[in-house]
Amino acid sequence: MQIAMIQDKMVPIEGLEPVHIDRGTFFGDGVYEVVRSYDGKIFALEEHLQRFANSLAAIEIAGVDIEQIRSRVHKAFDAAGIPNAKIYFHITRGSALRSHVGSANLKPNFFLTVTESDDDTEAKTKGIAVSTHPDWRWKRCDIKSLNLLANVLARQDAAKKGCAEAILVDETGLITEGAASAFFAIFGRTLQTTSLTANILPSITRIFVVKASKNIELETIEKSLTPQQASGADELFIASTTQDIVPVVRFDDKLIGDGKPGKYTKLLAQEFGSFTV
Amino acid sequence: MQIAMIQDKMVPIEGLEPVHIDRGTFFGDGVYEVVRSYDGKIFALEEHLQRFANSLAAIEIAGVDIEQIRSRVHKAFDAAGIPNAKIYFHITRGSALRSHVGSANLKPNFFLTVTESDDDTEAKTKGIAVSTHPDWRWKRCDIKSLNLLANVLARQDAAKKGCAEAILVDETGLITEGAASAFFAIFGRTLQTTSLTANILPSITRIFVVKASKNIELETIEKSLTPQQASGADELFIASTTQDIVPVVRFDDKLIGDGKPGKYTKLLAQEFGSFTV
Repeated sequence: MQIAMIQDKMVPIEGLEPVHIDRGTFFGDGVYEVVRSYDGKIFALEEHLQRFANSLAAIEIAGVDIEQIRSRVHKAFDAAGIPNAKIYFHITRGSALRSHVGSANLKPNFFLTVTESDDDTEAKTKGIAVSTHPDWRWKRCDIKSLNLLANVLARQDAAKKGCAEAILVDETGLITEGAASAFFAIFGRTLQTTSLTANILPSITRIFVVKASKNIELETIEKSLTPQQASGADELFIASTTQDIVPVVRFDDKLIGDGKPGKYTKLLAQEFGSFTV
Repeated sequence: MQIAMIQDKMVPIEGLEPVHIDRGTFFGDGVYEVVRSYDGKIFALEEHLQRFANSLAAIEIAGVDIEQIRSRVHKAFDAAGIPNAKIYFHITRGSALRSHVGSANLKPNFFLTVTESDDDTEAKTKGIAVSTHPDWRWKRCDIKSLNLLANVLARQDAAKKGCAEAILVDETGLITEGAASAFFAIFGRTLQTTSLTANILPSITRIFVVKASKNIELETIEKSLTPQQASGADELFIASTTQDIVPVVRFDDKLIGDGKPGKYTKLLAQEFGSFTV
């Protein structure tokens, strides 16, 4: 008799609920998005749904109706009634006993949570410390997949060092991005960040940061930085959906500027705020 | 109210069972092993448990009692009563709402299945076709983690091409290993395989293949091959826990030898068989 064991309890394999044999767990065979709302309004949902569709296509999960995802997001968000919410959702290829090649008749699994935004006001006003970590991730970081162990390990390492984010450095010695954020440096009136041709996620927040930078007349250049170059910047910040713009005031053991959030970073955050109302 | 949605059903977040918020699904934050039995006897369990302990340590999942894992494996195997069984088990860091850095009080989740061995007699007697695919995996393939999407995508690509395994080729043009197997070539009386210093899994089956090769007086060299070199080998085979030795008779569009399993591959499989009784 084929059997399964959950913790120390044995069950017949036929008795397993689908969630116990989700390919999301066996292989990380799924993709996800995180969106947030500001004061009752979901921000940039179209952009996130488009990227979600791209991720699904890239790993060839077919048969997902994006309109249905959109309506589920709205339904859950409305039901939760949280004005400043974080909305996480993922789709996996489906549930089946473990086999690398998924059979054609798998039905994708959908999961979503709506929770309070974990926006960190102190981090935004005082700035955060970050530490570098080797970029151990796979070569398709353009896909927002559930394979995130490299990100977790980098973040755990940062946390041990008292840092709020890990900045990933690839084998050639160049910064790619943060473990869960895009990374930006300001030199004079120039905003610098990694090109999207590198092995990074096409960050949606980044699009709005670049838009904000135009509004305050910063020039943007897309060119990877070394950690040494980054630690010599006038200002540094990270950007992510859940936190938008967060100033970086320490990079490994180097203080950035005078150790306080920089003026252009603050201006960019203000501009960004104007997009969310 | 914080809520979750499973497929199209809304539930209060407090009502979620732990399996729905397993870090294994959110991040692939866990490690696994597969062992098999031959005629009622589990093969190389000690080696697999040692590697499992190494994987747990590498990603800093603490508090797992390996003796308890061993006894669960035996208990489930005995209960299943399947002489030729495949035993899969994983441990994830635990269940919690999604946050990259796991809190210190997480309790690891254990999951195991005992199923019939999927040993493929036809593949072993006739040999299989394999196709090359870029090695998109992360840089810590020494850890047997649940981050396996690159392996799934490579295997899916191989399946489309009518191939039973994908042989992964890194950025420098060298073969690392199969998507779910070690890869070997035979030239004359020399057995060649990638060095364990490369970004590959320390395969347990490989240890027994090398032992078998000594018994039939093949010399072993550890050196990566290019696809071109591999396609010119006298014999090729893959090795894995579930299938042990499987001859490769086509490599991309090239027939290997006369398109039938090679004589040393057959001798190695025989020798390997003597270890499992």
